[in-house]
Amino acid sequence: MDRQGIALVLSAPSGTGKTTLVGMLREEFPQLCYSISCTTRAPRQGEVDGKDYHFLSREKFLRLKDERYFAEWAEVHGNFYGTPLAPVREMLEQGRDVLFDIDVQGARQVKQNLPEAFFVFILPPGFEELRRRLHARGLDSEEVIQRRLANAGKEMKEAVWYDALVVNDRLEDAYARLRAAYQTATLAPRCRRQMLRALLEDFA
Amino acid sequence: MDRQGIALVLSAPSGTGKTTLVGMLREEFPQLCYSISCTTRAPRQGEVDGKDYHFLSREKFLRLKDERYFAEWAEVHGNFYGTPLAPVREMLEQGRDVLFDIDVQGARQVKQNLPEAFFVFILPPGFEELRRRLHARGLDSEEVIQRRLANAGKEMKEAVWYDALVVNDRLEDAYARLRAAYQTATLAPRCRRQMLRALLEDFA
Repeated sequence: MDRQGIALVLSAPSGTGKTTLVGMLREEFPQLCYSISCTTRAPRQGEVDGKDYHFLSREKFLRLKDERYFAEWAEVHGNFYGTPLAPVREMLEQGRDVLFDIDVQGARQVKQNLPEAFFVFILPPGFEELRRRLHARGLDSEEVIQRRLANAGKEMKEAVWYDALVVNDRLEDAYARLRAAYQTATLAPRCRRQMLRALLEDFA
Repeated sequence: MDRQGIALVLSAPSGTGKTTLVGMLREEFPQLCYSISCTTRAPRQGEVDGKDYHFLSREKFLRLKDERYFAEWAEVHGNFYGTPLAPVREMLEQGRDVLFDIDVQGARQVKQNLPEAFFVFILPPGFEELRRRLHARGLDSEEVIQRRLANAGKEMKEAVWYDALVVNDRLEDAYARLRAAYQTATLAPRCRRQMLRALLEDFA
């Protein structure tokens, strides 16, 4: 291991192209880890406990939450989801980079619990373009699209405290920026403590 | 102008390859500005006041220094040198990026006077390699090389508070890291205030 790992947090309004960008990043950097989340929802066909998710009872989840076990957690449609903090810290110590693909509420919690993480907000180029993309992908009803657009406006108000803003105007340009941000995050002295210490000893 | 400018501060021990890296950066990004420094030394043959330097009397320089006119200043071989802060702030407001190619003492002052600057420290891969490079360039006596190596060790102790550490092991790799750091610095929300405001209005 030549450095500590970094936690890279990506947030984006729905339809902004985050999934595509994350896919490109993981293809170029297969060493980027996800941590396994905990959830209180029932396993779906084929899902394996401890691999896809840690499936927990509601009681267990809420107890762990109170014990500050999670880097971030959320309730979605009555089910709880959370990312355990300790395994993330362990991966970082081992020099593995960990990707958080989470919404602004989750990112805010990670900022509290893992302040050394690097936060990237992916933005749409504008309202009309996001609406066009949400229609073009053909996944949602008009009502759902309206809700997504309204949420996008709310979520983007949080962008101001992120470390880097990446506008997804052209995919290749947005990816180049995201890639630069990831690479730069790994250059922080807190990731290079051992290298710096060895270098200072070399010059002592 | 689509964003505010950033102040990019580069420091490196002598012989680390900073001049080469700065040259590559300025070739790829000709819009990167230097500000004109003030000095108390006499103009050399062909140097133009207000273009190469602002040539000031010692009295004037010291008064300006006391008035906190400089982003950073230093005394070198009995002459004073300083970078005026106001023109830098003006360039940043106009969306122009400003490069500071300065030592750790100067960088520390910029950190105080322009805390939003982005600080990159360029490091040699090790003691023996730096010694080899200093000999290979054939500019210095053995005595001067010894002093440079000793200074390098002292300067690198400051690297810990910089934003990014770039080891110049292979020039192309080091340049790619420096380039990523520069690009990422420009993605900070404080550089993209207008864009973000416009986008939020678009979604309001």
